[in-house]
Amino acid sequence: SGKMVLFAGPCAVESYEVCARVAETLKEICLRLDIQYIFKASFDKANRTSAKSFRGVGLDDGLRVLDQIKRDFQLPIVTDIHESYQAKPVSDVAQALQIPAYLCRQTDLLLAAGETGKTVKIKRGQFMAPEDMQYAVNKVKSTGNEKVILTERGVSFGYHNLVVDMRALPVMRQYAPVVFDVTHSVQQPGGMGGSSGGQKQFAPYLARAAGAVGVDGFFIETHPNPEKALSDGPNMIPLHKMNDFLTMAKAAFEMGQQANNDVE
Amino acid sequence: SGKMVLFAGPCAVESYEVCARVAETLKEICLRLDIQYIFKASFDKANRTSAKSFRGVGLDDGLRVLDQIKRDFQLPIVTDIHESYQAKPVSDVAQALQIPAYLCRQTDLLLAAGETGKTVKIKRGQFMAPEDMQYAVNKVKSTGNEKVILTERGVSFGYHNLVVDMRALPVMRQYAPVVFDVTHSVQQPGGMGGSSGGQKQFAPYLARAAGAVGVDGFFIETHPNPEKALSDGPNMIPLHKMNDFLTMAKAAFEMGQQANNDVE
Amino acid sequence: SGKMVLFAGPCAVESYEVCARVAETLKEICLRLDIQYIFKASFDKANRTSAKSFRGVGLDDGLRVLDQIKRDFQLPIVTDIHESYQAKPVSDVAQALQIPAYLCRQTDLLLAAGETGKTVKIKRGQFMAPEDMQYAVNKVKSTGNEKVILTERGVSFGYHNLVVDMRALPVMRQYAPVVFDVTHSVQQPGGMGGSSGGQKQFAPYLARAAGAVGVDGFFIETHPNPEKALSDGPNMIPLHKMNDFLTMAKAAFEMGQQANNDVE
Amino acid sequence: SGKMVLFAGPCAVESYEVCARVAETLKEICLRLDIQYIFKASFDKANRTSAKSFRGVGLDDGLRVLDQIKRDFQLPIVTDIHESYQAKPVSDVAQALQIPAYLCRQTDLLLAAGETGKTVKIKRGQFMAPEDMQYAVNKVKSTGNEKVILTERGVSFGYHNLVVDMRALPVMRQYAPVVFDVTHSVQQPGGMGGSSGGQKQFAPYLARAAGAVGVDGFFIETHPNPEKALSDGPNMIPLHKMNDFLTMAKAAFEMGQQANNDVE
Repeated sequence: SGKMVLFAGPCAVESYEVCARVAETLKEICLRLDIQYIFKASFDKANRTSAKSFRGVGLDDGLRVLDQIKRDFQLPIVTDIHESYQAKPVSDVAQALQIPAYLCRQTDLLLAAGETGKTVKIKRGQFMAPEDMQYAVNKVKSTGNEKVILTERGVSFGYHNLVVDMRALPVMRQYAPVVFDVTHSVQQPGGMGGSSGGQKQFAPYLARAAGAVGVDGFFIETHPNPEKALSDGPNMIPLHKMNDFLTMAKAAFEMGQQANNDVE
Repeated sequence: SGKMVLFAGPCAVESYEVCARVAETLKEICLRLDIQYIFKASFDKANRTSAKSFRGVGLDDGLRVLDQIKRDFQLPIVTDIHESYQAKPVSDVAQALQIPAYLCRQTDLLLAAGETGKTVKIKRGQFMAPEDMQYAVNKVKSTGNEKVILTERGVSFGYHNLVVDMRALPVMRQYAPVVFDVTHSVQQPGGMGGSSGGQKQFAPYLARAAGAVGVDGFFIETHPNPEKALSDGPNMIPLHKMNDFLTMAKAAFEMGQQANNDVE
Repeated sequence: SGKMVLFAGPCAVESYEVCARVAETLKEICLRLDIQYIFKASFDKANRTSAKSFRGVGLDDGLRVLDQIKRDFQLPIVTDIHESYQAKPVSDVAQALQIPAYLCRQTDLLLAAGETGKTVKIKRGQFMAPEDMQYAVNKVKSTGNEKVILTERGVSFGYHNLVVDMRALPVMRQYAPVVFDVTHSVQQPGGMGGSSGGQKQFAPYLARAAGAVGVDGFFIETHPNPEKALSDGPNMIPLHKMNDFLTMAKAAFEMGQQANNDVE
Repeated sequence: SGKMVLFAGPCAVESYEVCARVAETLKEICLRLDIQYIFKASFDKANRTSAKSFRGVGLDDGLRVLDQIKRDFQLPIVTDIHESYQAKPVSDVAQALQIPAYLCRQTDLLLAAGETGKTVKIKRGQFMAPEDMQYAVNKVKSTGNEKVILTERGVSFGYHNLVVDMRALPVMRQYAPVVFDVTHSVQQPGGMGGSSGGQKQFAPYLARAAGAVGVDGFFIETHPNPEKALSDGPNMIPLHKMNDFLTMAKAAFEMGQQANNDVE
């Protein structure tokens, strides 16, 4: 439809209260800014650097909270899956299943997600050329499911660093709509000794750049109190700054959309 | 023990006949060269570039062939797993479970592998700094299983290319024994349009380099007829060249072992 | 002053006629769009891939043409220097001396440029972290010359490829005004066997991205007939498309300027 | 001839005394180990990170010391040049002119070096694909001078880091003999805030790896007292360890030579 899409929420399903506060705030902002909003939270952080890190509340409790959010706020839900068996139960609650970047080549996972008939949102692997994401898209489409979204979140650039290659956005939009992941693009993998660090200060710059290049939407992790978030706190945008951030992102999105329309 | 280890076989379990021919030949060579040999073949190629590529015979048939090889040739077996549920059935046949590079951060998979009590052989992700592999090792060890082996197979260097950072070998040997994967280190990911290409011509150079730096062994995919192999053919070393290759690799291994002993 | 700056021209000083046509056209466009325009052309292409490539008309003839352009169109001139002895004669004609990316660490060249008292425009080396460009700036400033401009043109990303790290723009603006080089950022070094190729199709995307992030201006090579240009033809923007390109770049520039002002 | 070559010395010409001590020690070791030794020291460090770093004694004084070393110890000399005008005076003293890595594409410098008729030793740029070094070789050979040597010293791998791509060695040996630069390959460019750091601990590993792959010799910076060296101290090998280091490097060199001969 050309309307800007936002996938956002508090990284992990920490509690109903945190999720509800985020859902309510973002729903109101997105209504005002004419953005299509999908609530995001993970029931499991399956690839934390250390086994001792917080992993989430688990599949059953996580889906229960997500289902409650969905009903209470009338919002579509996206959450990620890590093994094939999760696709079915997650699809009972979520409108979209997210495939983590490290897993974007796992054929079984992509097929299982595709077979649910729900939207499959695939993050570009930090090790994947943008044109190779067409094969991930094709794996999902081979199940007869055409609802695929790709996500850019940076590519390996030496150790403990990612770089966002803006060329990847138009390349990947040849295959599917593309969302820019503001939060993980500023991650520094493993850079903090046992957990991943980040450079939150660059988030607004990269969001504007991606919007101006042209994307279909954004993915953002946010929290009422990032310092207390149970995962990815260093990179999250505080909930009270989301209004300004989204206003800025929307302006960039519109510039990119306009510029790409001019060319066609 | 300081004895050189070799993990080798025909990439995928294509048939009992191909596996048997490789097992017999390599067992004989390794006996002669005083190398500890573990037979390797995959029952499933779960992360092929395209969904249309050959994936293997599947778990049940694959394990049946591997079990037959194990009995007929009295050889230990290594094979890779991609989802947690595979750990248990695979461990009934294999002495070692291999964690693919893309999956080296998947906590559930590492824990499931660790809990079998078998050796867990983890490949370094193409996106992982060598020092961050200690967290993968620790995840396995948190199950009480101390039998971990790491594997070097190159790191992302731009698109469609890997580079082997030889510094990674001594860094990772601080955490576990390290095997150098000759075959995948010369891979060019996604470089051939729908499948991965390779630079087989560099395999002997990199094997010598890794041996001279110091490793505990090698991982090599081989086939009686690489052009007819159902996966990874471009990078495999023909079976009839394995005797020369291993002789060369062993000389480099001994140089590295000697040099590192001199320092201690 | 906050006015957008444009350094642009036909890569090499091919002839007075080509230079004049570009100068006249761009002067008119920039006047209309309220852009500060500096004419750019090189008298010598000192680092072509092959010794057989066109190198330019040489110092004397080149400066003669540039001086004529300067007088006839009342335009400031920028051109690059490659060895210290060129700083003085070039400064007799040019308002700005450009230091090529490969040479951004050559102390003598930076000092010689600084000592002319003219503006010194330093391109970021393809091998330099953005924060290390402060040392290049400081070398020029150690001569008492505070007029320094930095230029972003991409960083090495594997072989035959560059990536533009948008984080570099705000990092480098801490030290000096920053110009985004649209033309060389889409270069593929040495990628065409004996000369460098390019991906001109990405130029508008990267220009919008850089503008939206925030820069002080742009560097663009253009030609009335890029196929006939004697160097860098593959990456140049045709002169007749410059009006649309600059209109687009200016909109992105204004968005970035606005966004960065909002933060302060 | 197949004899191993060593280019080594104390980075900068600090004083006759330091140079003499290194020359005497290394000459004796190389005689004993059957290595062809060329004394190396720079009269000018022209691309230090900061303008405040030690730059060397300058062209005239530097050449005077190098000439004295050449006569007193009957040793050939190599030193680097940074601008074309230096080629002639340096060639009056040195048997080989070294082109720094950043300057390996500067056509004028390569031609000026070639025209002296002396050996031209070109370091691979941190931004150059190995196959593109053939163009640098060809530039020198276009002067009628066939005496060219290439040097591997690592390639940009993200920021503040280099990786040695061992594949570069056989690729570049197609064009010219190749020397492995032990010292600069473990450099971390700009990594220490105003100067470059290093990882000296990896030097023996990389030297063994390069030798085993196959090279024509090594480049090593050494000093009687690295902590007091006026440049590059962090990466230098102490003079009193050079005997052991060269013994190890020679063993690796011989393995590589043997292995490559076996193939032919």
